[in-house]
Amino acid sequence: MSILAPAGTVPSIPNSTEFVRNAWYVAAPSKDIGENLVGRRILDEPIVLYRTDSGPVALFDACAHRRFPLSRSLRVGDKIRCAYHGWEYDVSGACTHIPSADRIPKTAVVKKYPLVERYDMIWIWMGRPDEADPTLIPDCSHFHSGRTTLEQINIGCHYQLLIENLLDFSHVPYVHHDQQGHSKLANVVPKAGVEDGAVVLTRSMPDTVVPPLWHNVMGLPLGSPMNHDQRFVYRAPGVVCVHQVISSIEHPEQRFSFSTNHFVTPDGLDKTHYTWVICLSWESVSDQVLRTMHVGAADVASQDVVALELQQKNLQHLRAYQVPSPAISVPFDSGALLSRQVLKKLADVQVSAEG
Amino acid sequence: MSILAPAGTVPSIPNSTEFVRNAWYVAAPSKDIGENLVGRRILDEPIVLYRTDSGPVALFDACAHRRFPLSRSLRVGDKIRCAYHGWEYDVSGACTHIPSADRIPKTAVVKKYPLVERYDMIWIWMGRPDEADPTLIPDCSHFHSGRTTLEQINIGCHYQLLIENLLDFSHVPYVHHDQQGHSKLANVVPKAGVEDGAVVLTRSMPDTVVPPLWHNVMGLPLGSPMNHDQRFVYRAPGVVCVHQVISSIEHPEQRFSFSTNHFVTPDGLDKTHYTWVICLSWESVSDQVLRTMHVGAADVASQDVVALELQQKNLQHLRAYQVPSPAISVPFDSGALLSRQVLKKLADVQVSAEG
Amino acid sequence: MSILAPAGTVPSIPNSTEFVRNAWYVAAPSKDIGENLVGRRILDEPIVLYRTDSGPVALFDACAHRRFPLSRSLRVGDKIRCAYHGWEYDVSGACTHIPSADRIPKTAVVKKYPLVERYDMIWIWMGRPDEADPTLIPDCSHFHSGRTTLEQINIGCHYQLLIENLLDFSHVPYVHHDQQGHSKLANVVPKAGVEDGAVVLTRSMPDTVVPPLWHNVMGLPLGSPMNHDQRFVYRAPGVVCVHQVISSIEHPEQRFSFSTNHFVTPDGLDKTHYTWVICLSWESVSDQVLRTMHVGAADVASQDVVALELQQKNLQHLRAYQVPSPAISVPFDSGALLSRQVLKKLADVQVSAEG
Repeated sequence: MSILAPAGTVPSIPNSTEFVRNAWYVAAPSKDIGENLVGRRILDEPIVLYRTDSGPVALFDACAHRRFPLSRSLRVGDKIRCAYHGWEYDVSGACTHIPSADRIPKTAVVKKYPLVERYDMIWIWMGRPDEADPTLIPDCSHFHSGRTTLEQINIGCHYQLLIENLLDFSHVPYVHHDQQGHSKLANVVPKAGVEDGAVVLTRSMPDTVVPPLWHNVMGLPLGSPMNHDQRFVYRAPGVVCVHQVISSIEHPEQRFSFSTNHFVTPDGLDKTHYTWVICLSWESVSDQVLRTMHVGAADVASQDVVALELQQKNLQHLRAYQVPSPAISVPFDSGALLSRQVLKKLADVQVSAEG
Repeated sequence: MSILAPAGTVPSIPNSTEFVRNAWYVAAPSKDIGENLVGRRILDEPIVLYRTDSGPVALFDACAHRRFPLSRSLRVGDKIRCAYHGWEYDVSGACTHIPSADRIPKTAVVKKYPLVERYDMIWIWMGRPDEADPTLIPDCSHFHSGRTTLEQINIGCHYQLLIENLLDFSHVPYVHHDQQGHSKLANVVPKAGVEDGAVVLTRSMPDTVVPPLWHNVMGLPLGSPMNHDQRFVYRAPGVVCVHQVISSIEHPEQRFSFSTNHFVTPDGLDKTHYTWVICLSWESVSDQVLRTMHVGAADVASQDVVALELQQKNLQHLRAYQVPSPAISVPFDSGALLSRQVLKKLADVQVSAEG
Repeated sequence: MSILAPAGTVPSIPNSTEFVRNAWYVAAPSKDIGENLVGRRILDEPIVLYRTDSGPVALFDACAHRRFPLSRSLRVGDKIRCAYHGWEYDVSGACTHIPSADRIPKTAVVKKYPLVERYDMIWIWMGRPDEADPTLIPDCSHFHSGRTTLEQINIGCHYQLLIENLLDFSHVPYVHHDQQGHSKLANVVPKAGVEDGAVVLTRSMPDTVVPPLWHNVMGLPLGSPMNHDQRFVYRAPGVVCVHQVISSIEHPEQRFSFSTNHFVTPDGLDKTHYTWVICLSWESVSDQVLRTMHVGAADVASQDVVALELQQKNLQHLRAYQVPSPAISVPFDSGALLSRQVLKKLADVQVSAEG
């Protein structure tokens, strides 16, 4: 299936106001969750995360008694002791001790969220626990073919703005002109379609020039001629993998395969947890190269933060004041528009299952 | 009447969204209101407080003309001159001078609130002025039996969260573990009932140990065995007196009677004025002992601020996002649950009187 | 027509919640708009302003594509290049370049606002562009009779609070007592009426005394006797010109004619752009005198900011909590009350034209 979005008027703000709950989301990079209790909002739910010897744990972040945040409480062994009245919870979310009561009410329990640790990230299932099938976690086995580096940040924007940013690389020569920008990124319209429920965009950009970040990472001469191929795969609700190959035209044996992978988790409707993973898949990537890539990617992400938060602010303002403001789309937006379709489909399935 | 609250599911947030207006509230400690104009919100109404030779005055804090705050204006003798257009008000709230007008409109008046100064505090009546009966001020004559010290602070929480905190001392070994905590405070469930419209909780905690604050104040050896009795009296809407006796087991003649008294006044629905009064009722309490107690009580209060504001924030978040979150109660919560009943009864009486 | 407002109860907050759109407003002083892109909210619409060789330009401040703010983008010649995906707009608001598309959709256009530069200010028409008749710009030709100095600031209040401040000079001896205050400013009630759709107030204040600012500007002895005449002209929605004459009683040949002119442009309903222009119309006004006047006027304006923001805060609080609070008016308020009438009339005409 291939859909070319017509140039025309579309809503400037994605329509879906509901979250897709029956899905795996990246809660945090593995490295960020250790002994300490970490409070984090996901799909508007307050969640406390921590790690035991048996793996990571995620519980609803409000004591069953008077809703004190467990993330601001005390860890005692593998249990959490509420800092307000001393109620204790085990890793299943069951209350195991109430100082003033011999009998624990059966209802004294906080929700436990299914977690799976995979690809150096902790995945959380936000829907009905009995439907938490780990085989539904998007495949990122291509990480095993190279060396990876990753980071999580928080952006003050609706999560779909981030997804659409990641599916429209025509912004790269503008927002990241000092990093990754070469003009063909904005000129060559990708082929867009849906394959097995995923939005797939592909394009070849032959005979373009090496930008600063790829010069720094791959060592190709800055501005020298190269070929650049990209394949974007968006799996709703929140994973965008961009598989890329760069090769020198003058020295075709210098061919670099890598992927930039993006994990988008709604915090609330106006904030988003954004985890990026870079995977460099060529031979003998040194620590130094991996570090250079990490710093460059962090810079790129912080440029996106600025752009997306400005966009969000403008959209919120227009909406708040009901200033009419339909948006225009062009062929380059096919990927973004398809992402709305697959996301809406997921949301509809969920609604119909609940109905 | 004695009611034992069943362990079970109760609303995590108190139900009453209306304030009880026909009641005396502590507006401020006497020491805090002097010559200067002080602006303070009580039950969502802006109020200006100041003191004349004839006593304290409370007026609606908005000029009848264009609603400029009188608390940001100028005191001229016993009058307030609005800083915007110079209208002057006397202590009755009547406008007595308009620079540009010979005749003062009869409607040029701001509401005057009935005040009574008693127990080193200024009490304000927020209901119909003709019903402001000073005999309705809760009796605190036990203050006369000892030496007192007091302070007022503001907490960013709903006033019922503070009341329920004060009626559930099982939080003490957790929130105040470094101050007043001994484990029986969380273990011994008080007898709870309603007497003459007041919620009364009583308990004896024999053979427990001296915690740091009582060591510092009473001079008992830290950790030595003691008996501890408590009697809580909650008079709705906003007074909680906790009468306590501590006695050394090794030296029974060392017996200390004191009370911690709490005056809870809604600022708005998300902020509360909290005045505490400590009364030490044994023989020859020195200035030094009273000062030590004051500092300790202020520390305890600031620990409650942290806990209550975290609880409020979590509750507001859960409500805002409509995350289902019933709360669980246990026998220790009887006092808190009874406080909701008597408060609701007061509110209902008021509504029926207005109806 | 002359209307004396009855002393009585009026709404404390002006009623009109809608903006008058079919009108010229001062967007900015000419000196503030140059080469750089300036983002400014007017009547709740985000607008980008900049200057070309052909004059100033105002466009809707949101790219037609994904609503990125053009004011945070890049100026390229006389065009703006969106910093997100590189779309370019000319001074007509038409998109002239989309990096990824050969064909520009006809709908790829942002609204262009009619502008006129006059009296050292840039006037913007916020209504239907085809009705933007420059002859409707309020006449300020009296600026040509003297030397002028001007400034624009932003105040956190509803624009009608500012207009009513400017039409009720009884506030001057209170808010500006250290600057312009002499007691007759609050005592002498102006004659008020409507002439040709403008609210006109006039008054003579014979035998009053020279206040600090006029002493500093005109060199008259501080506190010496003077005559002071004022004529206020309010043209809805946003222009108040105050024509004044001051003359020394001891030296009648020392006669100073000047005007203080005020341009009020809603930012949103809770914020207002305020431009003041002082015009000194006597012979040989030196740079030094003009500078002294500018500094004094800026001080006066900052005193108004404090007063108006306190008033706004109090009004917002009373409204938010539905505290009943009608306001009282006196004869001095005639001008302010008439301003509500003419403004409401303008708003009604607009609604009926749209209906």
